[in-house]
Amino acid sequence: MRAAFYEGHETIRIGECAPVHPGDGQVQIKVSHCGICGTDLHVFHGKMDHRVTFPQVIGHEMSGTITALGVGVSGWNAGDRVTVRPLDPCGACPACRAGHSHVCQKLKFIGIDSPGAMQGLWTVPAHTLHRLPDNLSLEQGALIEPIAVACHDVRLGEVKSGEFCVVLGGGPIGVLVASVAKNEGARVVVSEVNPFRLKLAADLGLETVNPRETDIPAFVNRETGGAGADVVFEVTGSAAGAELMTKLPRVRGRVVVVAVFSEPPKVDLFQFFWRELKLCGVRVYEPQDFEKAISIAASGRLPISRLITNTVPLEGLEPAFRQLESGGEVMKILIQCSGE
Amino acid sequence: MRAAFYEGHETIRIGECAPVHPGDGQVQIKVSHCGICGTDLHVFHGKMDHRVTFPQVIGHEMSGTITALGVGVSGWNAGDRVTVRPLDPCGACPACRAGHSHVCQKLKFIGIDSPGAMQGLWTVPAHTLHRLPDNLSLEQGALIEPIAVACHDVRLGEVKSGEFCVVLGGGPIGVLVASVAKNEGARVVVSEVNPFRLKLAADLGLETVNPRETDIPAFVNRETGGAGADVVFEVTGSAAGAELMTKLPRVRGRVVVVAVFSEPPKVDLFQFFWRELKLCGVRVYEPQDFEKAISIAASGRLPISRLITNTVPLEGLEPAFRQLESGGEVMKILIQCSGE
Repeated sequence: MRAAFYEGHETIRIGECAPVHPGDGQVQIKVSHCGICGTDLHVFHGKMDHRVTFPQVIGHEMSGTITALGVGVSGWNAGDRVTVRPLDPCGACPACRAGHSHVCQKLKFIGIDSPGAMQGLWTVPAHTLHRLPDNLSLEQGALIEPIAVACHDVRLGEVKSGEFCVVLGGGPIGVLVASVAKNEGARVVVSEVNPFRLKLAADLGLETVNPRETDIPAFVNRETGGAGADVVFEVTGSAAGAELMTKLPRVRGRVVVVAVFSEPPKVDLFQFFWRELKLCGVRVYEPQDFEKAISIAASGRLPISRLITNTVPLEGLEPAFRQLESGGEVMKILIQCSGE
Repeated sequence: MRAAFYEGHETIRIGECAPVHPGDGQVQIKVSHCGICGTDLHVFHGKMDHRVTFPQVIGHEMSGTITALGVGVSGWNAGDRVTVRPLDPCGACPACRAGHSHVCQKLKFIGIDSPGAMQGLWTVPAHTLHRLPDNLSLEQGALIEPIAVACHDVRLGEVKSGEFCVVLGGGPIGVLVASVAKNEGARVVVSEVNPFRLKLAADLGLETVNPRETDIPAFVNRETGGAGADVVFEVTGSAAGAELMTKLPRVRGRVVVVAVFSEPPKVDLFQFFWRELKLCGVRVYEPQDFEKAISIAASGRLPISRLITNTVPLEGLEPAFRQLESGGEVMKILIQCSGE
């Protein structure tokens, strides 16, 4: 079978790869589709080289069909359509013992710290599996992982029906956070500068605003009767986003930091004091977030398939990275992994 | 009667002042003692000139005895010993309507935005009063306001018995936050560099650590079995504190921003993502925090009187400001306002 290997130095090689026989508690999956995540782009750029042992197969936003079961796996059968929650916690650290194994202090993220999904057959622990319902296509199944991120973020942001939310950043995660928050009954506004992404967010039924054209604090103030936003999601990872996020919330409003900030930005802590704001960081997902994501996707209420702007074979991965870093007319790119 | 007037430009004048007859819903109080707050020092340095109309009587950490009641005041009598919660909310803004009047969007802080307590007779709204029990001295009564700040901070920090807390900064508010958290059953460590304040915190029964001598992240890691602190209170308002506050919490731990940051510091938002940390800003107090503070002070469990390093007459205010800004052997200075 073939796989996409990250070889360091912004290099992807498509080559042969031997399938791994599933060991105790493992399953082997024929991978159908695998989405490209921002994290994969970071890996491609060498920013995760302290974690990635290369050559390494990458990818983790996937869907597929079980082909083989290891010893001790129950509840699953060959032919089951699944997606994978790619977390492998240690089970013994203080965070795991406190019930927060998704942010295990020694967490192995499958597809970064161990081989990923961009190969024909992928072997993973059975505890990572979630079943895809029949009415979800395998293309849609590859979107469950990023939707689960959004479900986690909205859940920890405690978004309630009728609340006013602002999402800073209209990339794939930003629009999914916005869509899930809207699904909870909130009014949601997405702030984004890229015209293609603005249009796509609007096509998804989201309210949008361009910070280059609109004074967003004044807009939010006006739209909330002088109160401010209930929740602000920071999904840009930029200094501008870190500055804007403290200007929008109401008294006792919440800021949810979704983005990964590679450098500590300046943060106006005075505003946290003045308005008794709250901030929470959010990372990956817990099992219930995957179940919620599958439920939302299967409901058909959100036009999630429109996020998929391209579907390409394994050979398309490196050009896809180039397209993503160009910041052009692209949102979610899926890789066809087993040639079907 | 006499009063201490802030006249701008680091100038205090002690002069005559006409008592204000209590109007509808107001009471007049013979002020016994008034503590000097960090905010008063900011006023003295001209940093609040955008809010303070001078000449202005300042001060708000007070105790006294009711001398006269305005029309419509019930439940209070002349001779009652009281302290004042110096907040005058508008009652109509979105924050007030949402039940957060202590952080009213048009909050008037009595003693900054209107005349303060450093005068012989002070007239304030009756809704600001809290009764001092007989077993509290009027000197102790002047400490209730800063203890209420600490009660508010510990309450919003959701400190629970058995938790591990770190308080960054061992000034008056820092040691009171630490004392109140300890009173809740937490293990509390105070980080401070000033030797006098370290000794005073130790005299108050608090565990202390000097960040110039101890690697605090390593210390916390060791003392918590590799987990990290449950709660970190940032009370320094410094770049060093803002850096340290993200290095100490456990997964899903809390950071409480107590200090007033005049400049936005760099904040390592990556740590919020990585460990799903939470941060909350805290400001002033709510009525229950005053009641809790009075209850704690009256219990005699905390040796709060030791915080009072000096008691001086009105004329001592300007020298007291100089002593406080020297950063020497001083903690809480009380002003005797009515010469008794």
